Amino acid sequence: MDLINELMQHLQKDEPEMIKIRRHLHEHPEVSFHEKETSKYIKNYYQDMDCQVRDCGDGYGILVDIDSGKPGSKLALRADFDALAIQEDNDLPFKSQNPGVMHACGHDGHTAYMMVLAKNLINMKDQLKGSIRIIHQPAEEVSPGGAKSMIQDGALDDVDNVVGIHVMSSMPTGAIGYHYGESQTGRSDFTVKFTGKGGHASMPHLSNDAIVAGSYFVTTLQTVVSRRLDPFDTGSVTIGSFDGAGSFNAIKESVTLKGDVRVMKESTRKKIREQIEQIVHGIEVTFGVTADLDYDDNYPVLYNDPSFSKQVINTLKEANIPEITDFGAQDPSEDFAYFAQKKPSIFFYVGCMTADGKNHPHHSPDFMMNEKCLLIAAKAAGTVTLKYLLK
Amino acid sequence: MDLINELMQHLQKDEPEMIKIRRHLHEHPEVSFHEKETSKYIKNYYQDMDCQVRDCGDGYGILVDIDSGKPGSKLALRADFDALAIQEDNDLPFKSQNPGVMHACGHDGHTAYMMVLAKNLINMKDQLKGSIRIIHQPAEEVSPGGAKSMIQDGALDDVDNVVGIHVMSSMPTGAIGYHYGESQTGRSDFTVKFTGKGGHASMPHLSNDAIVAGSYFVTTLQTVVSRRLDPFDTGSVTIGSFDGAGSFNAIKESVTLKGDVRVMKESTRKKIREQIEQIVHGIEVTFGVTADLDYDDNYPVLYNDPSFSKQVINTLKEANIPEITDFGAQDPSEDFAYFAQKKPSIFFYVGCMTADGKNHPHHSPDFMMNEKCLLIAAKAAGTVTLKYLLK
Amino acid sequence: MDLINELMQHLQKDEPEMIKIRRHLHEHPEVSFHEKETSKYIKNYYQDMDCQVRDCGDGYGILVDIDSGKPGSKLALRADFDALAIQEDNDLPFKSQNPGVMHACGHDGHTAYMMVLAKNLINMKDQLKGSIRIIHQPAEEVSPGGAKSMIQDGALDDVDNVVGIHVMSSMPTGAIGYHYGESQTGRSDFTVKFTGKGGHASMPHLSNDAIVAGSYFVTTLQTVVSRRLDPFDTGSVTIGSFDGAGSFNAIKESVTLKGDVRVMKESTRKKIREQIEQIVHGIEVTFGVTADLDYDDNYPVLYNDPSFSKQVINTLKEANIPEITDFGAQDPSEDFAYFAQKKPSIFFYVGCMTADGKNHPHHSPDFMMNEKCLLIAAKAAGTVTLKYLLK
Amino acid sequence: MDLINELMQHLQKDEPEMIKIRRHLHEHPEVSFHEKETSKYIKNYYQDMDCQVRDCGDGYGILVDIDSGKPGSKLALRADFDALAIQEDNDLPFKSQNPGVMHACGHDGHTAYMMVLAKNLINMKDQLKGSIRIIHQPAEEVSPGGAKSMIQDGALDDVDNVVGIHVMSSMPTGAIGYHYGESQTGRSDFTVKFTGKGGHASMPHLSNDAIVAGSYFVTTLQTVVSRRLDPFDTGSVTIGSFDGAGSFNAIKESVTLKGDVRVMKESTRKKIREQIEQIVHGIEVTFGVTADLDYDDNYPVLYNDPSFSKQVINTLKEANIPEITDFGAQDPSEDFAYFAQKKPSIFFYVGCMTADGKNHPHHSPDFMMNEKCLLIAAKAAGTVTLKYLLK
Repeated sequence: MDLINELMQHLQKDEPEMIKIRRHLHEHPEVSFHEKETSKYIKNYYQDMDCQVRDCGDGYGILVDIDSGKPGSKLALRADFDALAIQEDNDLPFKSQNPGVMHACGHDGHTAYMMVLAKNLINMKDQLKGSIRIIHQPAEEVSPGGAKSMIQDGALDDVDNVVGIHVMSSMPTGAIGYHYGESQTGRSDFTVKFTGKGGHASMPHLSNDAIVAGSYFVTTLQTVVSRRLDPFDTGSVTIGSFDGAGSFNAIKESVTLKGDVRVMKESTRKKIREQIEQIVHGIEVTFGVTADLDYDDNYPVLYNDPSFSKQVINTLKEANIPEITDFGAQDPSEDFAYFAQKKPSIFFYVGCMTADGKNHPHHSPDFMMNEKCLLIAAKAAGTVTLKYLLK
Repeated sequence: MDLINELMQHLQKDEPEMIKIRRHLHEHPEVSFHEKETSKYIKNYYQDMDCQVRDCGDGYGILVDIDSGKPGSKLALRADFDALAIQEDNDLPFKSQNPGVMHACGHDGHTAYMMVLAKNLINMKDQLKGSIRIIHQPAEEVSPGGAKSMIQDGALDDVDNVVGIHVMSSMPTGAIGYHYGESQTGRSDFTVKFTGKGGHASMPHLSNDAIVAGSYFVTTLQTVVSRRLDPFDTGSVTIGSFDGAGSFNAIKESVTLKGDVRVMKESTRKKIREQIEQIVHGIEVTFGVTADLDYDDNYPVLYNDPSFSKQVINTLKEANIPEITDFGAQDPSEDFAYFAQKKPSIFFYVGCMTADGKNHPHHSPDFMMNEKCLLIAAKAAGTVTLKYLLK
Repeated sequence: MDLINELMQHLQKDEPEMIKIRRHLHEHPEVSFHEKETSKYIKNYYQDMDCQVRDCGDGYGILVDIDSGKPGSKLALRADFDALAIQEDNDLPFKSQNPGVMHACGHDGHTAYMMVLAKNLINMKDQLKGSIRIIHQPAEEVSPGGAKSMIQDGALDDVDNVVGIHVMSSMPTGAIGYHYGESQTGRSDFTVKFTGKGGHASMPHLSNDAIVAGSYFVTTLQTVVSRRLDPFDTGSVTIGSFDGAGSFNAIKESVTLKGDVRVMKESTRKKIREQIEQIVHGIEVTFGVTADLDYDDNYPVLYNDPSFSKQVINTLKEANIPEITDFGAQDPSEDFAYFAQKKPSIFFYVGCMTADGKNHPHHSPDFMMNEKCLLIAAKAAGTVTLKYLLK
Repeated sequence: MDLINELMQHLQKDEPEMIKIRRHLHEHPEVSFHEKETSKYIKNYYQDMDCQVRDCGDGYGILVDIDSGKPGSKLALRADFDALAIQEDNDLPFKSQNPGVMHACGHDGHTAYMMVLAKNLINMKDQLKGSIRIIHQPAEEVSPGGAKSMIQDGALDDVDNVVGIHVMSSMPTGAIGYHYGESQTGRSDFTVKFTGKGGHASMPHLSNDAIVAGSYFVTTLQTVVSRRLDPFDTGSVTIGSFDGAGSFNAIKESVTLKGDVRVMKESTRKKIREQIEQIVHGIEVTFGVTADLDYDDNYPVLYNDPSFSKQVINTLKEANIPEITDFGAQDPSEDFAYFAQKKPSIFFYVGCMTADGKNHPHHSPDFMMNEKCLLIAAKAAGTVTLKYLLK
């Protein structure tokens, strides 16, 4: 255990570096699938270090391999680095310099602690067994996500397990949260266009009103969750976009709706899809319109492998983490789920609530993290990694 | 009646001039409330004639007064001159030069025949009694219309009766159509914005979905016509615009809908407005959203005074018009209705179907008129005017 | 015209007989298709008179033929004699003796004046030309009505025209109302049963909720009138029965709805039927339920032949009727429409408002007629008949 | 543990008696709140035994107290004895003799094993500590249930814990199922009457259609579950009864709907109630109808106290039960929940699937139990009781 203590001391010492990196990233955010400079910045960091760095996936993904040279398991640590299309409201010395773009979800922090942790692991790699893969992932925020193409490009080859961390502004800094099994929702989305026949508002009988068809579609859609799902199952169906803008005195020929589906089970995903397809067809028949439905099942349910997760959480409990609690399942989806679908994994949460106790929700223009979370995340991931490689 | 014959001969001779003017206007269309050049062109025509010309109303309206100098009645003749925001599809030597703007309703023809008729009436005014007012009206197509402010600015002062003509592409050229009493619908329109609370699609319980509220509003609105109106009454309610475009994975905070109402009775207009206000409030209560309703009762029902209309139609029947038929009431609205609300009036239709018998609907990009309708309209209006003034 | 005066005097003298007969019928009402005693009573009246009496149709219909023995036209006069399943609220010496049954529509009056008029026409038949057929019709109130089977059984054979009268409690006694052309709505009705799958209320996912399917059917049905009909056309669609009673904690397997349709044009009837069939099928597809639809187009639009009607109304205007007005088209349906479909006919209204001016609506438990209407109806029908036969 | 072995041997020997009692009860079922003869039969059984028997509650409830005479805890065992209003379809020698009434949920079995177990516990009471209370409860099936008034009448006085068992036909005989914490839904129900204005189907504008209001209520109600609940929470809202039967050609004045609500949390119950009240009021405003809402929050969520439940389940696991599994939470509600609300309790399930492996669902006319479950239930309850009293 001396090694762990040693790592902890190094990380403690490097806390200012983590903060510096995080602030640099915060000042220069890039939206999903366009993280060119961020990716360059990360690769540059590893330039003279004793590790293998390679591009991975369709976008700006990077793999950093740290090999002890001795046989053993291979653990992947994942950190995402994309920002959001949000204009920052905070007044900070390192406020976003890119208008309309902001690290409003904390991925700047994920990347900062991971780079510094990786540096330290590289430095002590000769004392370890097996190997470590750092997955610097772009484009977590936007479907299809960055994980999918990285996996197709070999990101999980020979990897035994994956660990991911997300900071969480609604949780006190110092606390760690987790959940075993299904932990974050899976997601599907769809677009449906209903086409009737346009015309003059004074002559409805010569037209076929697409706004009316679309509105009855929305009201009927409510029955999917209210009547078709087992009340013990989790599912939601949202129409987030009803694009039917037009002139008040013309009957609209077509409208386009976009929908979002969340589930905690693949059987629920299937049931909802069948029902939506059935209702879309029913609207065609009822109103004599035509419907073009484009339905995409994407993010899987995020599944924390109970056995591997227990091992990780027990490791953390044995370390000096003040508060580790089952945080329950979470509504949002995460494309870490693609990694967890392939390998036994865990994705857990590190509290980053600001010192004043105020809530700065993720994805809001005033999102803010307590930077103390960086060291905590680094220590948690470091402890887990060493315990894992030295077991 | 020699005077009438004389006028008919002059008009016959002037048919090429009418066509020339119509083509000039067709080539240079201007949308409602922006008919600056058209107005200049018209005023220029009257420059050296023996008549009083004055601007009238908020826009580009023009009054041309032709006074016989002898006591008698005062008859107003109205022709509108605005064009539509439509891109012309026709391939004509005098095709619209203004991109996206087109005389697709025939107002170019209305103005052309009226200018030439006015010229001839000016020339023979000493042989007449009473006086004639030519109302060159802008902005018929767009609420609040051009008529309203012209009336406020005195357009109907001392006027006894008003005559208006509309060309009609679904009626054979040579035919004249009319209807006594309520002849075209009155119109109201409204905008309603429903505001709930935005949020993440995966957490509907923390939001208040404005698209859902708007959709139930549309489905409930159907009951206004289906359950609240006497089946013998005419009314329609259309939502022409449902502006709820957004991101699929966010719950929409607010949506804005625009509606159109048509009626044939003021009591129906009142009933519909009350019901819509009631339903809007009901949606507020049901869904806990707030609604901003902006409701505007505008174009009146167009009422052809039966007594004056019969007098005009009988005059036409005595002339050599091949076919004069009761055309029934029409669905669209007309701001001539404002004139007819103030003075006993008639608004009738002159067929302008093209020689090939094809339908070129008004307000369509391939609208086309048979230019023979110009002379027919001029003769009809001329006959009615002389009979009226000489009675 | 001496004959007419003679008839008028006879009728005047016989007014007490009309009242006596009406009160007898009022005291002994029988519901549609069960008018056995009423029919016997009527036939008994004609027993010793010089006329042909025969049963006609599936029910208790009676034809009374009065033949002058001379060539000429044949005019039919129709009076209906069924009562309603309503418990009388009036306190009258001749109040209904049959619990739950009441002459609440005035058919007792129709039959009473007609019997006395017939007696007088029989007495003067040798002075007439042509012939008269009295149609005593049962079962007007309930579909399929009594007219249909009487026509199939020859009630209109050799008949040239038909005249029908209805008393009208909302019209002053002394007044006569009429309308040319389409005068009362045609009617269709339907029954639809939606069958899903029953189950326990706590497990909606194992059932298919028929109440939900039926309710969305009702809300969607509103679009037939609101969006599919020309606003200038008349149509109504009502669900009068939603039979879905059950236990609160069980999901309903099936519901049965009954609907009523009114129209003023056969094209509207067809359009509405097509739309309802389409929506019923759409509900099947949308909700995965099965639907059994039983749709019956029955009562035609009542059409008063303009030419024959004008002749009749002019006859009445020449007589001393104080007030004859165009009463407009009426919402309810009438199975006299079947006669009018076959022969040029007129159906007009005789005011029967009580002296106190209060409204006693037809089909209400306190319906009441001013018995003075009996003589007025007899005189009107008598005048029309003589003028017709002597023309 | 010799005592336990002794009890097991006695129960084994008494299996025929359990079966005999069960068949007697099955042959003479009585519906909830009318179990007069059943109650008499049970009390008669205890007549000469060394225990206190007393009536308890508003109905036919019975308490049987078995006191060891030594200090110690007091454990209550609950068995319910009411039947359902279902006509039995099974062809059995002991088929229900009461037309339309059937023990279709297994309460006959609950009572049979409990009586025989009680007899044996009475016989060995001197060897025990503390005391046992047998709760023979009527009226479990129908709100407000029999438990409530028994509790008010002292059924839980001095009781420390309560154990209840339900047979389960979908679970193999021999298996035992359980769930810790919230285990069966809580329930609320409501009745709402919407009153508009009746009238003739041809004149919708003079009426206010209650069927239309009721139908829009049902469609709007779907949003409570689909939009107002956290997708991770359990809730269902069912309209089980839509009583709107009437005549097809009349507009319905009023309709009465009955609804059922299930929840797993009191906060969900509150949220749903608020939303339903809001929507009911919204329908009043939207349609101008009046609504009478009668809302009753009744059965609590059934809560198996985790600490006490674990103790009981561990006892069972130590005995020779072949299969004990976490059965998950169940959709239906149980009025045992009232007991569990007052004292730490457990309610668990004993498989009773028939030997042929067919499913005979509870509350179906062909419900059938494998009578081997009686001995299993008696042994399980007996083991738990002795372990509890001797601890």
